[in-house]
Amino acid sequence: MKALVTGAAGFVGSHLCDRLLSEKITVVGIDNFILGPKSNVEHLTSNSSFNFIELDLTNKGKAVKLFEDNEFDVVIHLAANSDIQKGISNTGLDFQSNLVTTYNVLEGMRLTSVREIIFSSTSAIYGRATGSISENYGPLFPTSLYGASKLSSEAFISAYCELYNIKSWIFRFPNVIGPRATHGVVFDFIEKLKRDPTRLEILGDGKQSKPYVYVFDLIDAVMKAWKDSKEQINFFNIGGEGTTSVKDIAAFIIEIMNLDNVKIEYTGGSQGWPGDVPKFVYDSSKLSSLGWNPRLSSDEAIRKSVKEILSK
Amino acid sequence: MKALVTGAAGFVGSHLCDRLLSEKITVVGIDNFILGPKSNVEHLTSNSSFNFIELDLTNKGKAVKLFEDNEFDVVIHLAANSDIQKGISNTGLDFQSNLVTTYNVLEGMRLTSVREIIFSSTSAIYGRATGSISENYGPLFPTSLYGASKLSSEAFISAYCELYNIKSWIFRFPNVIGPRATHGVVFDFIEKLKRDPTRLEILGDGKQSKPYVYVFDLIDAVMKAWKDSKEQINFFNIGGEGTTSVKDIAAFIIEIMNLDNVKIEYTGGSQGWPGDVPKFVYDSSKLSSLGWNPRLSSDEAIRKSVKEILSK
Repeated sequence: MKALVTGAAGFVGSHLCDRLLSEKITVVGIDNFILGPKSNVEHLTSNSSFNFIELDLTNKGKAVKLFEDNEFDVVIHLAANSDIQKGISNTGLDFQSNLVTTYNVLEGMRLTSVREIIFSSTSAIYGRATGSISENYGPLFPTSLYGASKLSSEAFISAYCELYNIKSWIFRFPNVIGPRATHGVVFDFIEKLKRDPTRLEILGDGKQSKPYVYVFDLIDAVMKAWKDSKEQINFFNIGGEGTTSVKDIAAFIIEIMNLDNVKIEYTGGSQGWPGDVPKFVYDSSKLSSLGWNPRLSSDEAIRKSVKEILSK
Repeated sequence: MKALVTGAAGFVGSHLCDRLLSEKITVVGIDNFILGPKSNVEHLTSNSSFNFIELDLTNKGKAVKLFEDNEFDVVIHLAANSDIQKGISNTGLDFQSNLVTTYNVLEGMRLTSVREIIFSSTSAIYGRATGSISENYGPLFPTSLYGASKLSSEAFISAYCELYNIKSWIFRFPNVIGPRATHGVVFDFIEKLKRDPTRLEILGDGKQSKPYVYVFDLIDAVMKAWKDSKEQINFFNIGGEGTTSVKDIAAFIIEIMNLDNVKIEYTGGSQGWPGDVPKFVYDSSKLSSLGWNPRLSSDEAIRKSVKEILSK
């Protein structure tokens, strides 16, 4: 079996390459190195089942040629701008990096008859949804361009599945953490405290509260659902156990870094940034019913990730 | 007040221009004349409150310049490929004509601080939804590229509303019929029977059944909701009273055209074309609660439209 992993040098992508290779799947990994660093895939260069190509998927001609040059059995499409805040200052970023790339991948699949796609969607498609959010929640009004680009990608994947005999596995990621993270709150706080251990600026009021999932738990969920769920469109919330507030994340990091008297400065407001969804809770019973549950709770995932990032 | 109407030469667009002008609103109408014919706006050329510009909104530079050259108070964004079947043979059509145009309109609005957008969405965003579909239905998995492009447009409108202080009115159109229609089942059957009154080919099994709304009822709904509903995102199903089967549409037309012994030939299958949603029923209680109800039922709308098209 031959898989294409887009965004292979990214945080989740590089771990997925490792996992697929460990299951004897041949992997072609592509990345443009905008977010994902070369160091995330360097350990794979000597693996004869892994072939890395530097490629920007916003170029349709190049994307289609990649498909024509290979015979993929499955596409794991993770390439995206996953830094939500970046999309605020550059309104073309999410449209191009997240949606045009997905469209080009779908075109490549259609033209070369690839029949399976695994896609990284997001909790951000649910916008200001309240309560415990199930996969069937409606209406869908995302508040960020990131969320909009991912919902749009789902919509096109859905139509391509119907029209061109494709099966899809859509995973709505929560916050994912662990080794090789390229950005995000845990990563940011550690960087800030390394630069200045006497103070920490926190965006918003610190009460933002979301589920965090450890990257290896997330990859288990992806692999399990891909194997065990066989609808034309398979779609899942990947939720952690519990949620963690930004204030608590700061406290964990300060404790683990063994810092004293850190002055916390809140920028104020309930949102970390425009378009941020400050609180959400996932209903992940759909994945649970397949037999998947995270090994680490949201709090545990953060503590473990902080230690791993610091030990690097 | 100055309004931009995109798709002004289209079926619904041209009627909306008439209506806005009758309410003393200055209108800039644009169209690329791909679907909408010049004849739909010819009667407006002498109106000093109407300015027509031939423009293709897929060109971002031109789209933004249009906004910079004007000070719009509201955008009524209808420009789109509305011929769902066309998108099957040309997979770039809906992405470009429906989604890229919407993105370019939103960029024009952002850059020139336009605060209101009225948007023509579609029942096709609901995919294979069953039962009486309310606006909060989920999950949303459209089966056509047309539906995908409209759901994507909604998603980006939603994010722009949140981020750039814009208000939107999103209308999920059903099948709309009436004078100036450019395509669609009523239009097609009449054309076919004019060419050959002895036989009629019907796509699918003829049991496809959908609500049809008369274009002037639809325009009343749009104007009413725009005036009376003031959320940041206002979204409505525009449903008719009842539904009409394709078989019945054929029977109405044959009766009104006074034809005998027409041989009906079904192409077979439950869908009219790949991606077609053969049956749906709208819950339009949300619009009803604003005080709007269609004057014509689905059957009445079809009978009236047939007579109007034939009398032209």
